[in-house]
Amino acid sequence: MTGSDAVDLGFARVDIAREARQGLPEVIYGTGKTAAEIASIAQTLLRHNTGPVLATRVDASTAASVLDAVGNGTYDAQARLLVWRPAAPVGFTVVVAAAGTADQPVAHEAAAVATAAGLTVTTVTDVGVAGLHRLLAEQDRLRAADTVIVVAGMEGALASAIGGLVACPVVAVPTSTGYGAGLEGITALLAMHASCAAGITVVNIDSGFGAAMAAFRLSRVAR
Amino acid sequence: MTGSDAVDLGFARVDIAREARQGLPEVIYGTGKTAAEIASIAQTLLRHNTGPVLATRVDASTAASVLDAVGNGTYDAQARLLVWRPAAPVGFTVVVAAAGTADQPVAHEAAAVATAAGLTVTTVTDVGVAGLHRLLAEQDRLRAADTVIVVAGMEGALASAIGGLVACPVVAVPTSTGYGAGLEGITALLAMHASCAAGITVVNIDSGFGAAMAAFRLSRVAR
Amino acid sequence: MTGSDAVDLGFARVDIAREARQGLPEVIYGTGKTAAEIASIAQTLLRHNTGPVLATRVDASTAASVLDAVGNGTYDAQARLLVWRPAAPVGFTVVVAAAGTADQPVAHEAAAVATAAGLTVTTVTDVGVAGLHRLLAEQDRLRAADTVIVVAGMEGALASAIGGLVACPVVAVPTSTGYGAGLEGITALLAMHASCAAGITVVNIDSGFGAAMAAFRLSRVAR
Amino acid sequence: MTGSDAVDLGFARVDIAREARQGLPEVIYGTGKTAAEIASIAQTLLRHNTGPVLATRVDASTAASVLDAVGNGTYDAQARLLVWRPAAPVGFTVVVAAAGTADQPVAHEAAAVATAAGLTVTTVTDVGVAGLHRLLAEQDRLRAADTVIVVAGMEGALASAIGGLVACPVVAVPTSTGYGAGLEGITALLAMHASCAAGITVVNIDSGFGAAMAAFRLSRVAR
Amino acid sequence: MTGSDAVDLGFARVDIAREARQGLPEVIYGTGKTAAEIASIAQTLLRHNTGPVLATRVDASTAASVLDAVGNGTYDAQARLLVWRPAAPVGFTVVVAAAGTADQPVAHEAAAVATAAGLTVTTVTDVGVAGLHRLLAEQDRLRAADTVIVVAGMEGALASAIGGLVACPVVAVPTSTGYGAGLEGITALLAMHASCAAGITVVNIDSGFGAAMAAFRLSRVAR
Amino acid sequence: MTGSDAVDLGFARVDIAREARQGLPEVIYGTGKTAAEIASIAQTLLRHNTGPVLATRVDASTAASVLDAVGNGTYDAQARLLVWRPAAPVGFTVVVAAAGTADQPVAHEAAAVATAAGLTVTTVTDVGVAGLHRLLAEQDRLRAADTVIVVAGMEGALASAIGGLVACPVVAVPTSTGYGAGLEGITALLAMHASCAAGITVVNIDSGFGAAMAAFRLSRVAR
Amino acid sequence: MTGSDAVDLGFARVDIAREARQGLPEVIYGTGKTAAEIASIAQTLLRHNTGPVLATRVDASTAASVLDAVGNGTYDAQARLLVWRPAAPVGFTVVVAAAGTADQPVAHEAAAVATAAGLTVTTVTDVGVAGLHRLLAEQDRLRAADTVIVVAGMEGALASAIGGLVACPVVAVPTSTGYGAGLEGITALLAMHASCAAGITVVNIDSGFGAAMAAFRLSRVAR
Amino acid sequence: MTGSDAVDLGFARVDIAREARQGLPEVIYGTGKTAAEIASIAQTLLRHNTGPVLATRVDASTAASVLDAVGNGTYDAQARLLVWRPAAPVGFTVVVAAAGTADQPVAHEAAAVATAAGLTVTTVTDVGVAGLHRLLAEQDRLRAADTVIVVAGMEGALASAIGGLVACPVVAVPTSTGYGAGLEGITALLAMHASCAAGITVVNIDSGFGAAMAAFRLSRVAR
Repeated sequence: MTGSDAVDLGFARVDIAREARQGLPEVIYGTGKTAAEIASIAQTLLRHNTGPVLATRVDASTAASVLDAVGNGTYDAQARLLVWRPAAPVGFTVVVAAAGTADQPVAHEAAAVATAAGLTVTTVTDVGVAGLHRLLAEQDRLRAADTVIVVAGMEGALASAIGGLVACPVVAVPTSTGYGAGLEGITALLAMHASCAAGITVVNIDSGFGAAMAAFRLSRVAR
Repeated sequence: MTGSDAVDLGFARVDIAREARQGLPEVIYGTGKTAAEIASIAQTLLRHNTGPVLATRVDASTAASVLDAVGNGTYDAQARLLVWRPAAPVGFTVVVAAAGTADQPVAHEAAAVATAAGLTVTTVTDVGVAGLHRLLAEQDRLRAADTVIVVAGMEGALASAIGGLVACPVVAVPTSTGYGAGLEGITALLAMHASCAAGITVVNIDSGFGAAMAAFRLSRVAR
Repeated sequence: MTGSDAVDLGFARVDIAREARQGLPEVIYGTGKTAAEIASIAQTLLRHNTGPVLATRVDASTAASVLDAVGNGTYDAQARLLVWRPAAPVGFTVVVAAAGTADQPVAHEAAAVATAAGLTVTTVTDVGVAGLHRLLAEQDRLRAADTVIVVAGMEGALASAIGGLVACPVVAVPTSTGYGAGLEGITALLAMHASCAAGITVVNIDSGFGAAMAAFRLSRVAR
Repeated sequence: MTGSDAVDLGFARVDIAREARQGLPEVIYGTGKTAAEIASIAQTLLRHNTGPVLATRVDASTAASVLDAVGNGTYDAQARLLVWRPAAPVGFTVVVAAAGTADQPVAHEAAAVATAAGLTVTTVTDVGVAGLHRLLAEQDRLRAADTVIVVAGMEGALASAIGGLVACPVVAVPTSTGYGAGLEGITALLAMHASCAAGITVVNIDSGFGAAMAAFRLSRVAR
Repeated sequence: MTGSDAVDLGFARVDIAREARQGLPEVIYGTGKTAAEIASIAQTLLRHNTGPVLATRVDASTAASVLDAVGNGTYDAQARLLVWRPAAPVGFTVVVAAAGTADQPVAHEAAAVATAAGLTVTTVTDVGVAGLHRLLAEQDRLRAADTVIVVAGMEGALASAIGGLVACPVVAVPTSTGYGAGLEGITALLAMHASCAAGITVVNIDSGFGAAMAAFRLSRVAR
Repeated sequence: MTGSDAVDLGFARVDIAREARQGLPEVIYGTGKTAAEIASIAQTLLRHNTGPVLATRVDASTAASVLDAVGNGTYDAQARLLVWRPAAPVGFTVVVAAAGTADQPVAHEAAAVATAAGLTVTTVTDVGVAGLHRLLAEQDRLRAADTVIVVAGMEGALASAIGGLVACPVVAVPTSTGYGAGLEGITALLAMHASCAAGITVVNIDSGFGAAMAAFRLSRVAR
Repeated sequence: MTGSDAVDLGFARVDIAREARQGLPEVIYGTGKTAAEIASIAQTLLRHNTGPVLATRVDASTAASVLDAVGNGTYDAQARLLVWRPAAPVGFTVVVAAAGTADQPVAHEAAAVATAAGLTVTTVTDVGVAGLHRLLAEQDRLRAADTVIVVAGMEGALASAIGGLVACPVVAVPTSTGYGAGLEGITALLAMHASCAAGITVVNIDSGFGAAMAAFRLSRVAR
Repeated sequence: MTGSDAVDLGFARVDIAREARQGLPEVIYGTGKTAAEIASIAQTLLRHNTGPVLATRVDASTAASVLDAVGNGTYDAQARLLVWRPAAPVGFTVVVAAAGTADQPVAHEAAAVATAAGLTVTTVTDVGVAGLHRLLAEQDRLRAADTVIVVAGMEGALASAIGGLVACPVVAVPTSTGYGAGLEGITALLAMHASCAAGITVVNIDSGFGAAMAAFRLSRVAR
């Protein structure tokens, strides 16, 4: 590993060796970057790597400009995600379970990133613990997954409930939905850590991306 | 309501009109009071009121001294509660549901105070959401209650789950069990407030007493 | 209880069995939902349930669109609430007591939701503890209630004062009014939990809805 | 004002000009100081100043050693205060109002320091807002004071209530009594700041000393 | 004191007895009130009381509407304050000392409210402790005051420094100026409480109004 | 799944179906349980299940009593862990990497629990980022693992550094080591979530147990 | 040092003696000041001092107005900095190392202020610890510096890594980049303080200015 | 830099290359290490390095055992520091300024570590801002230093005041002295960051060690 593994664009130093190290090219974090900057990094990654190239948290108008500059990409507006060269499916199944309707933007990001990285994703929505029968009706689908990503705001109790139902890895994503005592997702994050269900792991608030990347790491164990 | 409704003992001003106003004599908060002080207040309340007299958060040796001074009382060591003249049952049923073994001291306090106040209490323990079948197996018992008190630490998810199962009032008590991200009960308190189950109410951390008193207020609605 | 108790609309899984379980159909949380989504859920609930259908936190223009699509509803702008098929009064009285003028939007939500659910509501405003005579002048009205909902921001002291005056259940709603040390309602929430008045219960910040639902649960005890 | 206004004892630099600047010699903060250190500072102050010399937060055994070394002092065990040469009364009256029995150590410190500084103190205890009649019965006494010091933990609501009853300055002292959501006095401190009663001022948690010193400053306005 | 001491306007219950109780009519808190509401309350106070009538936190366009409806008032744009019938000077002097330029809006509010209440105010600006000579140059002016109001954000150190320089009461107002670790004024508020200068008192963040009202209470001691 | 899947011991409701559901019997959380209680639960689990039985957070003297009552167990004092019937190795390798010497108790718990569950563990200690060469020297060992558990307190930077070096799943455990700004592990927990390394997951503070259980879930993906 | 060392402009008291005391004229903090105020202070400083005059946090349109009024200045839009009379280089080298692209505004401010104060600055960007080879490739450049300013948000781990690589002073600037658990920079600030690398110092969140000024102080040691 | 630069003692991996990299051997953090462990690391460092060897936060009885095992060391009880082979003075002067008597343990650690590292230290105690004349009397001594370390708890205002008086680098150490709103040093840490004095830097709470190491880094700039 050497310094020449990075391409210096002035405003960014693109890590073109990440694909070799970690199986997936560096993912572009769109917040605060101009369309020109995103395009330039994407072109660099497309040229030096062979796998999927992604840019997260990109709004619609920026995305349009980027796609004009860098062809053959697609934009998923719900997930706010740009993708070029998505990976072929590797046969690893992920269920993204979202507690409520308000958690869907984060669930979309998780699903879209995981799909672009070659995982096979199904989504289960609106299965919050205040109506347990909705959750229990999905038990078989949850148990058939290689990994479950749980997306939940408010009190985040869905992670504990699913953690107790399935044997596979559970990656919990707290969301900033709700108000007041939800503290913009802090309460859900803390609650998921304090969960009585053993072996649950947690990623950052609203980070559908982080959960998908964790699932991608998991998928490599199975290969 | 006048100032003469209080008996001034110098170190305390005993509210002897509370029984008339609220149906139950003032309850003595034992923390930081000497045995002599507790005994003096208890005697005042026994003399001026006719209902049950209670002292909470009393340790065993203090309790022994108080009982020496003020006869006809009983001490519940698990609940750390002194009781004189317990109320006759009024026919209002409460289920105290505790998430884990560590939550039992608080559950005991809730149950003992409610019982002394005339409520009929049954207890369900170790029904945390990480093993939902344990909870679901108790559904009938929970649904038959006039009120459910949920005692849970860690992430406090049991309150949401029970809140969705029953139609009656649910009083949630966060506990300071657990460690790290549980923040000594703050996480459970916040999570219970952010709960996705509508109409749950919450009392202070570790306050089995507060939950029992809330249930007592509820019992008066039904009369 | 089975999975077929829910109607899957794709973006939401409507819990049509909640009315049977809890006496009131699921309430639609309007934040983050489009008019089309709210209308679709409302229609589903109106079709599969017989009781009142409500949508909270709906702004005026969204409400107008929803009412165009789903007839026979009414919109309460102060409470930001949509209601179809309000319940007939069940004879359970609630007093909503608001500490200050700034607490009125939350008080309105509490009153409107409770009324739609069949409770009989009267409102007492501007009775903060800085002018105790205003509160004391309302003692008789407060004491005649089956339940008091206390709405207060800033330091939330009104909950303690009313908790000491009445014998019935008290549900406290902290509000995010005030500034600085009020911490957007966190201070009032914590203060209400630390209250010296026994048996008060608390719901989430600004959750007039939660308080009304708690009162609805209470009303079922009395039947 | 010059550097020679301080006497350097090596471990401390005694501000012997404070009496001239502020009307009262520097007060010794006992926490973390040895008996020998306290004695040495006290002797320095007694020699270079003419007014009262005080040491706060001194435990009983340390106090005994200090009094052995520096004669003519007295120790108030409840207030944990050492006093030499108390001031003659200046005719300024302070009422110290404590919400509950648990707040008495802080109330004692406030009363003892104020008395040693020449103020005339009366104490009113156990007037928490959960029993408003106890407070209202003391209205005349509160209104006759030049200043009221309010000592309250838990939710600190007493400060708001008294702030609305009296016209004189109100100094509120939050205490660390209570548990859970009281956050060791932080909740009371924040609540007192967010108070709806105008013109209340607040000092540090458990700082009976600070409140007494604030009252002393006030007493100088009146002279 | 009776309930008839309040005038019920529906949206507000005006406390017309406050002038008799506390020497100043109730002050209108403008945030969240319409021009019509402010005007209505102001008229009520002007009719039933004889002293100054104030409305704080009123923006310019609302103020213009209110003044159209209620004549003989003035608007101070920097202080965002409406005043009718200002009090005649009572001969009590206040120095408002502001740490930096950014603290001036809060300092203006303090000065304008105090002036309207009859106090005599001078203002000292930009005397933060990072340039102590600027502060020391104002010592004489500070020492001549009956009371000093210290307005400071960031770390709030000015309160400690002035607290050590003067003998009179010091009321500290933390402000929300600064960024990052200043935590919107929370840091200054906590720092002022933890101050090493004895007898300083503190009011809410950005509450120039609260400080002025505290000074008004102080002014009554001196009469 | 039925309620009869749990054995009710009065003080606990043992979940004997967890082994079937999740591949490992319920693990006993030792904190707050007596030796008799731990022994009773262990015997229940040994009788109804066939896999390894563990009790965490057991001090030495309690452990001795438990082992007297329930034979064939072993106690690991550094990990404070009791184990009966450890699982045979399943061929899944875990590297536990600890940032500093102070993190070793947590690292020991992670290693011991994972080993008892059938994973193959090696440990790398004292590889904090302040001496990167120590970490880089272990790159090959880290890259050969199926999963890396990172144990780090203070600022928790090791998780980010390792997250960037390896392609496999990384489970980060914040520890409560350090002082001051480390906030008893809260800072490390937050920092690990905010990590710039994609796909890292986090468990509760000091929860070596939680990390081991997460690794166990991962191991099942690979089978 | 006297009071006449300050020029009172009414809205500000310009400290014209700071250049003599600290080697650099007072720097104007632009936030909340009008163009006219900035211009007036700048003119005062230019007249009474001889060194560089700076105004930070000035937006583009305000800057244009100021430059119209006060000639011979330059505006750096990325740094949001106005400079008149920049200092000649003093031969002290600073490397500003930024963890990611999002940290560049803060890095720009640090670099521009330091340059204007006479330091020689080079910038290294996008060297976050998730790609250690990028950082290690810059070791020689970092080690050649007199001082390194580390600008990093999210978990702030770059400060620890660089702290271990270089022997010179390290000034860490936490930034408010990132989301969720990053808590607007608080997490990075705390993590940098809890760093395992000895002798790192930290300035306020987003304060490129503070770091540059710290470097300027350091540069004086070397002269 | 290679992995062989570290000596693996099993429980610790001693970084023997740190002296070459940073000018001072690794310093042993005593908390949580046994006397045998400290002795073993010290011997390793003495053997492989030539500079001073230090162990911080060592209590007296542990220190005695270590000194028995590793000769020629000295123990400073006030600083809780073990030193072998202290460095010869390099001619760099540090003033350690402590706000109050309670801050002396931290000031002692700073002074003792800096001295052992070859810096020339003088100490100024009890110069808190509540008595500014004490501070101003020491101006000349402060201005003559190459660096000032400011040690202050409570509100930490001393850092701002000294930051404005001197031109040299200022390293501020918040301490956990005080009570209540001081939040165990968090308030002082935040206040020092929010300071109005430009270019101050801050280290962790109670970290006299960190400040001394920062000063050591500074001393290398001057050589």
